[in-house]
Amino acid sequence: MKIKGLAMLGIGKIGWIEKEAPKCGPLDALVRPIVVAPCTSDIHTVWEGAIGERSDMILGHEAIGEVVEVGELVKDFKKGDKVIVPAITPDWGSTNSQRGFPMHSGDALGGWKFSNFKDGVFAELFHVNEADANLALLPEGMDPVSAVMLTDMTTTGFHAAELANVELGDTVCVIGIGPVGLNSVAGANLMGASHLFGVGSRKNCCDVARAYGATDIINYKEGDIIEQVLQKTNGLGVDKVLVAGGTVDTFDQAVRMLKPGGAIGNVNYLGSGEYIRIPRVEWAVGMGHKSIVGGLTPGGRTRMEKLASLVETGKYDPSKLITHKLEGFDAIEEALLLMKDKPRDLIKPAVVINW
Amino acid sequence: MKIKGLAMLGIGKIGWIEKEAPKCGPLDALVRPIVVAPCTSDIHTVWEGAIGERSDMILGHEAIGEVVEVGELVKDFKKGDKVIVPAITPDWGSTNSQRGFPMHSGDALGGWKFSNFKDGVFAELFHVNEADANLALLPEGMDPVSAVMLTDMTTTGFHAAELANVELGDTVCVIGIGPVGLNSVAGANLMGASHLFGVGSRKNCCDVARAYGATDIINYKEGDIIEQVLQKTNGLGVDKVLVAGGTVDTFDQAVRMLKPGGAIGNVNYLGSGEYIRIPRVEWAVGMGHKSIVGGLTPGGRTRMEKLASLVETGKYDPSKLITHKLEGFDAIEEALLLMKDKPRDLIKPAVVINW
Amino acid sequence: MKIKGLAMLGIGKIGWIEKEAPKCGPLDALVRPIVVAPCTSDIHTVWEGAIGERSDMILGHEAIGEVVEVGELVKDFKKGDKVIVPAITPDWGSTNSQRGFPMHSGDALGGWKFSNFKDGVFAELFHVNEADANLALLPEGMDPVSAVMLTDMTTTGFHAAELANVELGDTVCVIGIGPVGLNSVAGANLMGASHLFGVGSRKNCCDVARAYGATDIINYKEGDIIEQVLQKTNGLGVDKVLVAGGTVDTFDQAVRMLKPGGAIGNVNYLGSGEYIRIPRVEWAVGMGHKSIVGGLTPGGRTRMEKLASLVETGKYDPSKLITHKLEGFDAIEEALLLMKDKPRDLIKPAVVINW
Amino acid sequence: MKIKGLAMLGIGKIGWIEKEAPKCGPLDALVRPIVVAPCTSDIHTVWEGAIGERSDMILGHEAIGEVVEVGELVKDFKKGDKVIVPAITPDWGSTNSQRGFPMHSGDALGGWKFSNFKDGVFAELFHVNEADANLALLPEGMDPVSAVMLTDMTTTGFHAAELANVELGDTVCVIGIGPVGLNSVAGANLMGASHLFGVGSRKNCCDVARAYGATDIINYKEGDIIEQVLQKTNGLGVDKVLVAGGTVDTFDQAVRMLKPGGAIGNVNYLGSGEYIRIPRVEWAVGMGHKSIVGGLTPGGRTRMEKLASLVETGKYDPSKLITHKLEGFDAIEEALLLMKDKPRDLIKPAVVINW
Repeated sequence: MKIKGLAMLGIGKIGWIEKEAPKCGPLDALVRPIVVAPCTSDIHTVWEGAIGERSDMILGHEAIGEVVEVGELVKDFKKGDKVIVPAITPDWGSTNSQRGFPMHSGDALGGWKFSNFKDGVFAELFHVNEADANLALLPEGMDPVSAVMLTDMTTTGFHAAELANVELGDTVCVIGIGPVGLNSVAGANLMGASHLFGVGSRKNCCDVARAYGATDIINYKEGDIIEQVLQKTNGLGVDKVLVAGGTVDTFDQAVRMLKPGGAIGNVNYLGSGEYIRIPRVEWAVGMGHKSIVGGLTPGGRTRMEKLASLVETGKYDPSKLITHKLEGFDAIEEALLLMKDKPRDLIKPAVVINW
Repeated sequence: MKIKGLAMLGIGKIGWIEKEAPKCGPLDALVRPIVVAPCTSDIHTVWEGAIGERSDMILGHEAIGEVVEVGELVKDFKKGDKVIVPAITPDWGSTNSQRGFPMHSGDALGGWKFSNFKDGVFAELFHVNEADANLALLPEGMDPVSAVMLTDMTTTGFHAAELANVELGDTVCVIGIGPVGLNSVAGANLMGASHLFGVGSRKNCCDVARAYGATDIINYKEGDIIEQVLQKTNGLGVDKVLVAGGTVDTFDQAVRMLKPGGAIGNVNYLGSGEYIRIPRVEWAVGMGHKSIVGGLTPGGRTRMEKLASLVETGKYDPSKLITHKLEGFDAIEEALLLMKDKPRDLIKPAVVINW
Repeated sequence: MKIKGLAMLGIGKIGWIEKEAPKCGPLDALVRPIVVAPCTSDIHTVWEGAIGERSDMILGHEAIGEVVEVGELVKDFKKGDKVIVPAITPDWGSTNSQRGFPMHSGDALGGWKFSNFKDGVFAELFHVNEADANLALLPEGMDPVSAVMLTDMTTTGFHAAELANVELGDTVCVIGIGPVGLNSVAGANLMGASHLFGVGSRKNCCDVARAYGATDIINYKEGDIIEQVLQKTNGLGVDKVLVAGGTVDTFDQAVRMLKPGGAIGNVNYLGSGEYIRIPRVEWAVGMGHKSIVGGLTPGGRTRMEKLASLVETGKYDPSKLITHKLEGFDAIEEALLLMKDKPRDLIKPAVVINW
Repeated sequence: MKIKGLAMLGIGKIGWIEKEAPKCGPLDALVRPIVVAPCTSDIHTVWEGAIGERSDMILGHEAIGEVVEVGELVKDFKKGDKVIVPAITPDWGSTNSQRGFPMHSGDALGGWKFSNFKDGVFAELFHVNEADANLALLPEGMDPVSAVMLTDMTTTGFHAAELANVELGDTVCVIGIGPVGLNSVAGANLMGASHLFGVGSRKNCCDVARAYGATDIINYKEGDIIEQVLQKTNGLGVDKVLVAGGTVDTFDQAVRMLKPGGAIGNVNYLGSGEYIRIPRVEWAVGMGHKSIVGGLTPGGRTRMEKLASLVETGKYDPSKLITHKLEGFDAIEEALLLMKDKPRDLIKPAVVINW
C-alpha cells in the first residue's frame, strides 16, 4: 500500500510524495491523523538544514489521530481509538531511559523520531513505536484542535519551568513568547510564579501571555531587557529565567538578570552559532550557584495524560494558541508555509483533516 | 513599663493580664499589633493542654504590626515600619537551620516561639527575635487583614503541597478544608494540580475550596472517602495526599488512597493518640515508595515576602478566608472564643486593632 | 520441551517438578542459570505464605546465567552471552515506569516477577522479559558467585541508603545486618556516612558490617537500641535510619532515634502485622520533617551495570557475603533449606551450577 | 591594642603590618590562630588582582584557632576553646541564606569575608562573625594540621561532587587535581563513584588522587583529554564532570565528555576571561539535559562538624594533602610564597604557629 505525505525533499525543498505505508511491528501502532500542526522546528529542518540533509522524509510531529492498526503485543489501544500522539516517543527500555532521560533514548535527542530520523505525521498514515507507552487516549469531549497543542508546544514550554524548578512565589522571566514561550509562561504560572515577566513585542502574543499569567511584558524595543528586569526587581534580578526563544547569545542576558542561586531552564532549539557564552563575572566567577540546564521535553503516554488532565479540569486552556484553523489534508502545506512566513497575527496554525 | 495581653492562665483558663514589657536585644524588634488572628492551635494549647501546662503566657502568633523599637544591630527595619510577623521566627544560625530546617532551630519545632514558649502577639507590645531575618515589610497598599493570613494559615497550608511535592498535572486529595486545608488546596493548585479533591462538608469551606482550585468536594457524610477517591480515579488512587485535618487515624485513609510512588504531606498538628498507624498491606508491605512526611511550616522574612508577592500579583487571595472581622484590642477575646466555638459560618476571624 | 525446576508446590511445601519450557517472545530471552542464590523472601513465600497461595511455581530470583535464545527484536544480547539477571525486571513502558517507578510497573511491586507471579530461576531454563532492558553482560573476569549478589542483595540494601538520601558526613543507623542490611551498611558508607551504626549481634555479620564501613555495632542484647544510639550521639539521634530487618514495630524505634529533618529508608519486606506504628510525640506531633519512605529496589540493566562497575573498580566487594558455596543444580534444594534454617555461620549461600 | 598581620598592601605587594585589633560584637568571637594555611586564592588576590585593589588587608582564610574572647550573646563557645574556622562565614539570617544559599549572604559570594572584604586569619588575632554559627569545636585528639584542610580545601573540593550530584556507580571525571581537585576526587569517591578519572600530571598529586579513589589518571600531556575519556568509556562519556582547575575554556572540554543527562559541578574560581563557552552541538543544541552548575562552598559550623566526623571515623584523611609543614607565625610569609611559586613537590603547605 502507498501513502501520501508532505515531505522534505532536501534542504530548502518540500513536496508531496508517495511512499510505501509503514509496517506495524508487534509493539507498534499505525495511526491516521485527525488534526496536525506544523512546528517551527519543521521550518528549521527544511529551510535551515538544522539537522542536516534529509531526502523524502515526511514532515510533522504534532498530531491527534485515530488508530488504524495495532501490533499483536499492544494491550491498551485498538483500531478506532482517538489518540494524542506525543512528538517525543521514547524507546522506554533504553539505557538512557533507565537513567531517567527517556527523551535521549538511544542517544541525545533520540526520543525525537518523527520528522527527525523517521517519517512524520503529515501523512495519510504514520507509525508509532511502543504504542502502549507512546499513545494517550484523547479524553471524551476534548477538542482535538486544542489537544494537538499538548503534543509539543505545551509539553516543551512547560518543561522550561520544570528544568528551572519554578517554586511558589518565584519571580520568573520568560525570554521569547512565541507558542513555546507562551507555554513556558503558562507552566511557570501553574507552578506558582508570582512576578512573571514575558519578553516579547507582538500584540497577540502579549495578550495570551497575560492571559497565561504574565504580570509584566518586557519589550526589547523599549530598552535593554536586562536593565528592565533589574529595574522591576529593585536590582536583585529574578529567581528563574526560562529561555524559549532567541539565540546562543540569549544566555548571556539570562545570566545577567539572574540571582545567585537561580536557575536557567532552556527549551529553545539552538539552531546556529558555535558557542553559548556565559559571562564570567556575572556568573560570579563560576561560584554563584546559577545553574544552567537545557533539555528536550519529556514525551510518552503518561506525560500526555497529565497535560490532558490540566485541560480537562480547566486549569490550562491551549485553545488560546490557535490563531489559524485550516481544513483538509492538503491544507497542511499552507499551514507549513504560514509557519515559515510568520504573519504578525500568527501564533500557531492547526489543520483539521477529518473529525 | 507594663503591657496588657490576653493570656493562658493555665490549662482551660484564659484572662487579661499585665506584664513587664519585653526588652529589645541588639538583633530584636518590639512590635505593636495592628491586626491579629487567633489560631486553632491557641485553642489546643489552652483547652486541650496540647503543649502542656503554661501559666500567664500571652497567646497569639498571627499578627501584622508596627515596629516600635529596634535593636542596635538591626539594619533593615525602623520605628514606624508596618510589618508582617511570621508565626515561625527561627534562630537562623542554629545547627538545625544550617541543616536546612530552621523551623526546628534549637530543637524540633523550636522555630515556633510565640504562644508556645514565649509570650505571643495578643499584647500591646511583643518581641521579635532576629528582626532583620524574621520581619517582612507589609507591601504598600496591601490589606493587613488579608496579610495576617500569610503569617500562619497560608504558609502552613502551602507547606503540605511542598512536602508532598505536587507536580504539574498531579491528582491530589486534601483531607480537611478548614483554614489551613483551604490553603493546602490553594497551594496544590498553585503548584499545578489538575484533579484536586477537597474532603469536607461545610458549605462555606466547600465554596472557598472550589474558588481555590478544588475540582471535586468529597463529603465523608456521603460514604467512605477512600472509596469515593478510588471511584473518581478509576481505582488508581491519587498522586499526593495533603493532610490538613483529622487525627492520627487519617494517615490510614491517606495511605489507602495513594498510588505507589505517591507522597503524603502532613501539616496537621496531631494533638492526641499514641500512634499514627500505617496499614501494612496498602503500604505495599513496606516497599511501595509511598512516602510520608510531616512538617512545621517554614517561617521568617523571605517566606513572608514570597507569599506576599503572590497576593500582590493577584495569584492568590487570602481575603476569602476571613469570615468574621472584629474591631479593637479587646475584641481579641471574642475572636478567640469564636475560634473555640466554631460556628458553622466561621472560617477565620481577624481583629483589627488600630489601622 | 520439558524443564526441571525447584518449585513451591503450595504453602509450606517445595519439590522438584517438570514443566513445559517457557516460550521466547520477540523482546524476550531464555536463560540457563550458572550461579543462583536463594533469598529470604523465597522462605517467606513458601513457609509463611507471605504472598499467598501458589502451586507449582518455580522459585528463585537471584541468578547469573547464559543466554540460550533471544527474541527477534532483541538487539544487544545473543546466545552464549553470560549475563547478570536482576531480581526486578520491569515493563519499562508502563505508566508507573514513566512516572519514575519501574519497580511498580503494572501495579505496586509489579516489577518483581520471578518467583512472585512467574516461574523463577531455580530451573534448567528461565524466561526474561524485555531482554535488552533487563539483562546486563557479566563483565569479563568477574566472579559470577560475587556477581549473583548484585541481583538482589546489593541493589536492595543500597536502595535503603538511596531512599533515606544519605549525605556526606551523615550519622546513620542500619537496623538489621543480615545480607540485605550489610549492603545497606555498604551503601551508606559508599554514599558518605561518617558514624555508621549497625544493629545486630551475630559475629560474622558484625565482622562484615565493620569491613563494609560500620563504625559501631549496636547489640540489642546489650540494652535498648534507642538508648544506645542516643548515647552515642549526645542525645541528638541520627540523620538517617535504614531499616533492613525487624518487623512492623521497628519503625517505632527508628522514629525515636531520628533527628528532626531526618529520614527513614525501608527495604525490609514486612511480612506480617496489620499496622506500622509511628509514635506521635516522637514524630514531633506530625511536624518534625522526619520522612518515612520504603521501596522495592530498582532493577533492570542499567542498575546492574552501575553496581557491577563498583565491583570492577574495587569500591565494593560482594564476596564477603558468601559464607556457603554449593555445587550442582541439585544443590539448590540444600541451599534453600540452609536459608530456611539459618545456621549461625550463614550469611548467604550460593550454588554454582555450571561455570 | 595593636595586632600584627601579613597583608596585601596593594596589587602585587605583600608585607607585615600593624593594625588596631578587631572589636568583638555581641555575636562575635576573637580568635588567635594555631595553624594556618595559604590558599591559591590568596595568590590570585595579591598577584593577579582577581578581586580588585585592596590596601592593607590582612590575608588568609584557612585557620584552626583558639578562642580569645566571645561576645555577650555567644552561647556555645568560650575563651580557650580550640576551634575550626571555616573560610566561609555566612550571615545566617540574610535573605539569600533563607533562600538556601548562605554562601551568598548579602550578595553573591558574600559569605566569603576573610581576605576578601575583611581582614583574614594571617594575624595575631582575627574576628569571626556569628560565632555560634561559624565556629566548630576541634574534636578532641584531632591533628590541627589535618583539620585546617577542612576549612576550605576539603569543603570546596567536596562541593563539586555535591553540585554534580554524584550517585552510586557513576563514572566521574575530575579536571584539575591540585589540593581542591584532590578533594573533589575524594568527595566523588565518598559519594559512590565507580570509575573515577583524575586529569593531571604531577606525580605526588596523581599518587594522592589514587589514594583518594581515582581509578585512572588522565594526563593531558599524553593526548587530548576528551578523546582519552571517550576511549575509556566506550564513547559514552561520563556521568559527571567536576571542574576544580583550568580556565574558562575547561567547560568546553567538560561538555564534550559528558553524557546526555549528565552534570558539571564547578568549584574553580575563574580568574580571567570574558566568557565561559559552551559548545552548541555537543550541548545537544540546548536540549541534552547537560546541567552546568558552579558554586562557592558552603561554610559555617555544621558543615565543619560533618567534615570533621569523616576524619574522626577514618573515612577521609586530609593529612595526605600536606606536603610542607612550617613552624612559627613568621613562617606564614614563606608558606604564602611557596604557594605562589608552586614547586613541583608542593600540594599544600601549613604553618603551625603555637600548639
